[in-house]
Amino acid sequence: MSSETAVARLARIDVGGPAHSAPSGDFGLIGLAVMGQNLILNAADHGFTVIAFNRTVSKVDRFLENEAKGKSIVGAHSIQEFVQKLKKPRRMMMLVMAGKPVDDFIELLLNEGGVEEGDIIIDGGNSHYPDTNRRTNYLKSKGIRFVGTGVSGGEEGARYGPSIMPGGNEEAWPYIKDVLQSIAAKSDGEPCCQWVGDEGSGHYVKMVHNGIEYGDMQLICEHLPVRRQFWVDLAFQAYDIMKRGLGLSNSEMGDVFDKWNHGVLDSFLIEITRDIMKFNDDDGTPLLEKILDSAGQKGTGKWTAINALDLGMPVTLIGEAVFARCLSSLKAERGRAAKILDGPTPKFEGDKQEFLDNLEQALYASKIISYAQGFMLIQNAAKQYSWKLNKPEIALMWRGGCIIRSVFLKDITSAYRSNPDLENLLFDDFFNKAIHKAQPGWRDVVSKCALWGIPTPAFSTALSFFDGYRAKDLPANLLQAQRDYFGAHTFRIKPEYASEKYPEGKDIHVNWTGRGGNVSASTYTA
Amino acid sequence: MSSETAVARLARIDVGGPAHSAPSGDFGLIGLAVMGQNLILNAADHGFTVIAFNRTVSKVDRFLENEAKGKSIVGAHSIQEFVQKLKKPRRMMMLVMAGKPVDDFIELLLNEGGVEEGDIIIDGGNSHYPDTNRRTNYLKSKGIRFVGTGVSGGEEGARYGPSIMPGGNEEAWPYIKDVLQSIAAKSDGEPCCQWVGDEGSGHYVKMVHNGIEYGDMQLICEHLPVRRQFWVDLAFQAYDIMKRGLGLSNSEMGDVFDKWNHGVLDSFLIEITRDIMKFNDDDGTPLLEKILDSAGQKGTGKWTAINALDLGMPVTLIGEAVFARCLSSLKAERGRAAKILDGPTPKFEGDKQEFLDNLEQALYASKIISYAQGFMLIQNAAKQYSWKLNKPEIALMWRGGCIIRSVFLKDITSAYRSNPDLENLLFDDFFNKAIHKAQPGWRDVVSKCALWGIPTPAFSTALSFFDGYRAKDLPANLLQAQRDYFGAHTFRIKPEYASEKYPEGKDIHVNWTGRGGNVSASTYTA
Repeated sequence: MSSETAVARLARIDVGGPAHSAPSGDFGLIGLAVMGQNLILNAADHGFTVIAFNRTVSKVDRFLENEAKGKSIVGAHSIQEFVQKLKKPRRMMMLVMAGKPVDDFIELLLNEGGVEEGDIIIDGGNSHYPDTNRRTNYLKSKGIRFVGTGVSGGEEGARYGPSIMPGGNEEAWPYIKDVLQSIAAKSDGEPCCQWVGDEGSGHYVKMVHNGIEYGDMQLICEHLPVRRQFWVDLAFQAYDIMKRGLGLSNSEMGDVFDKWNHGVLDSFLIEITRDIMKFNDDDGTPLLEKILDSAGQKGTGKWTAINALDLGMPVTLIGEAVFARCLSSLKAERGRAAKILDGPTPKFEGDKQEFLDNLEQALYASKIISYAQGFMLIQNAAKQYSWKLNKPEIALMWRGGCIIRSVFLKDITSAYRSNPDLENLLFDDFFNKAIHKAQPGWRDVVSKCALWGIPTPAFSTALSFFDGYRAKDLPANLLQAQRDYFGAHTFRIKPEYASEKYPEGKDIHVNWTGRGGNVSASTYTA
Repeated sequence: MSSETAVARLARIDVGGPAHSAPSGDFGLIGLAVMGQNLILNAADHGFTVIAFNRTVSKVDRFLENEAKGKSIVGAHSIQEFVQKLKKPRRMMMLVMAGKPVDDFIELLLNEGGVEEGDIIIDGGNSHYPDTNRRTNYLKSKGIRFVGTGVSGGEEGARYGPSIMPGGNEEAWPYIKDVLQSIAAKSDGEPCCQWVGDEGSGHYVKMVHNGIEYGDMQLICEHLPVRRQFWVDLAFQAYDIMKRGLGLSNSEMGDVFDKWNHGVLDSFLIEITRDIMKFNDDDGTPLLEKILDSAGQKGTGKWTAINALDLGMPVTLIGEAVFARCLSSLKAERGRAAKILDGPTPKFEGDKQEFLDNLEQALYASKIISYAQGFMLIQNAAKQYSWKLNKPEIALMWRGGCIIRSVFLKDITSAYRSNPDLENLLFDDFFNKAIHKAQPGWRDVVSKCALWGIPTPAFSTALSFFDGYRAKDLPANLLQAQRDYFGAHTFRIKPEYASEKYPEGKDIHVNWTGRGGNVSASTYTA
């Protein structure tokens, strides 16, 4: 937009749109950061003419002159030009920062862009699902179809096939299905893009997906100190461990990950971890060891944990993974703590390969728990928010392209396809057998690391969840007794012990001390 | 209020207050559930004339005719009567359900009650601190001084001396100090009630307090299955364990708790747990074993965990404790899971007393971690919300009366009094020595339970936190590498490896695969 035109517009004078030819655009994309650029290139490769726009317009030109050159990609230099270059109903996707920028662009499209009834706006960013709920309904009231979609797969996924999880106004689906499924990853010939459900359900499923990604990455990193302290990272290793001859180089660790990548753990994260292990700096030493161990925080992992707390679902693995990142970010404090807090010196005895196999099983079992928890959460959210969610399709969407893809998800898809009402992943035959097989190795790893002084927050919490979940009786009866003792909070009786004095299903208060009153805490809870 | 008067008031006709004598009330209290009644009796015992009011007025009469009989307690049957019976500036405390009821009573006091400038309204319920922030500022704008105070100690605490944690409009403090400190618990002669700080800081500190209570109770309950499965609860015990002669009765467990209550673990929760163990039903068997193991959920533990996630502080013990309650509430699902998920049969070998001592150390060490995490959170919140918080006083306030009181808190008070800028509890000499001494036993318990199939979410997460906190290097460097690999999220270099190519403090992106672009994820994060 020229500054003259801008001034005229500010004065509310209708200067008309800029001169342009008939609309040629099949698909429009706003936001030319790495994900946006790569999605545009991906769509162009699939035969779509894509209109590209960015708030900082110089980025449009730079993109057109470089990566986009020679492809069916057309630049727009104003929001009007962007809208007018698209065929109707317009299909416009935003890949901008979550939060206010999304609302700003929506208002810009409505007030300046000239979008019309029936047009479709897709938010492909990492929006929080309550915002997507709100935007779907707001735009519906204006006749605009809004879709909030999770897009996963990172830089490479966006370029060559991401996983796409759209939800919102279902009227839009028939119009956007072709382009989204074309650019999506394929898994056994099926596109990793299916309609998820109402309102913010697409972003919700992406949120849980990212939560699982957190868990997954935490699991992989947890072996690292085991190996680093015992077999690798000789520079930091204590003499007695080196002496036992258990040192593995990053390259050897890379070999282990490579081996695992051909077994039950075959997945994108295992694969890139292998590559990272093998990636040397110019001086021939592993670059990994030079990277600062202070982890970044992303909203979605945190959101998943908070949502789990709100819904009362024990999604412990994601919780621990988020907290592990919090702890890692206290780098300076840890440095001071390391000087005054001692621990045992790890002593490995036994068969190295056997322990590596146990480690593989610990990782596998913890992964099963992480996914079981994730699906427990999704299942509960669907109930809570009255969304219809298709569990087999969700597993399918996570299968290709996205960060957590793994052969594993194929087994999850099968589990839910053969029984869509499956109560829990651990009730499925395949996973039931798998977790029983993995148990001894898993327990060995957690048990040894506790003695060795190596933190295993994710492995341990997964194991505690498993042992708690399979326990018919948990010590929560003592909790209930304590709460009734100090706060008259009442308890209930186990059905098998119900009596006239202690009837089943009733709130019971006992005067434990013989002091205290008989008033139970009906209104106020301390 | 008669119905005639009510109609006249609705018509905005000033009918004046009901006939009454000169104000005699020193202190007013609204809400006659168990906590409210007991606080009134407590204040009356200390020589204050208390005006009592309740929305359901019949409760007022019942209270006056029973517990309040013969004491300096006066009933009010309308909100006007309540206000008019109080000396100015009026000191009015509410003990009603958190949320809308608090706002409703505030509006009632403002619009119908006739409170005047300078009067003081105290919310003694479990309000969420952002609500208290809002109410403090709202009432300040009307000239009313608002205080939000945590009150802890349960039924008995309220009656004989609770811990009281007031915050809000500091102008109110000189007027309410006498009554609140009189009714509060005393610890070594000091009242467990001090001014906490601005706005919602009193409720915030209570929230963290409750979070720690969660952790504490979880820790105590965690041994239970160990003992139940090995030495107690013979009815549910496998033959081979009984054979080893390790069965402890509830009464024997009571003895262990009693012993612990005279050592480093001396605390209210240990004491009541002892009593609960010894409490038999009419049939002579322990009532505890008949109580349903499905734990109640209270808001404050959850709020603490959510706040910790928001502030990015690794308060893992509280997080696990809340999730443990979530898991316990899935009672029916666990029952089905128990039928299809097997685990090892615990086999105890060794010295029973030695293992009990290790258990004591595991509990003690985990408690230290829980409090260290709680103070990390409080410290960070004070920074974040620009509240001045007095850490030694907070420990003091928790010392007597309230549920988490323990000799332990005396040591915490000492630690912060001798060094108010203490970075972390683990840096204090006393706790540093204590946790080093506890380590071997703690590790033994966590390690054995992993092998035995007994869930120890709180012990394990505390140990993982300890081992992570004292680790100068954490595997988060792999996380950073993975994120840069798949999402161009960049990483930073360890200072000791900084170079021209990889400068310190800069966001670095590496093309790990030789494919991908050079665009880093500046705007969009997948």
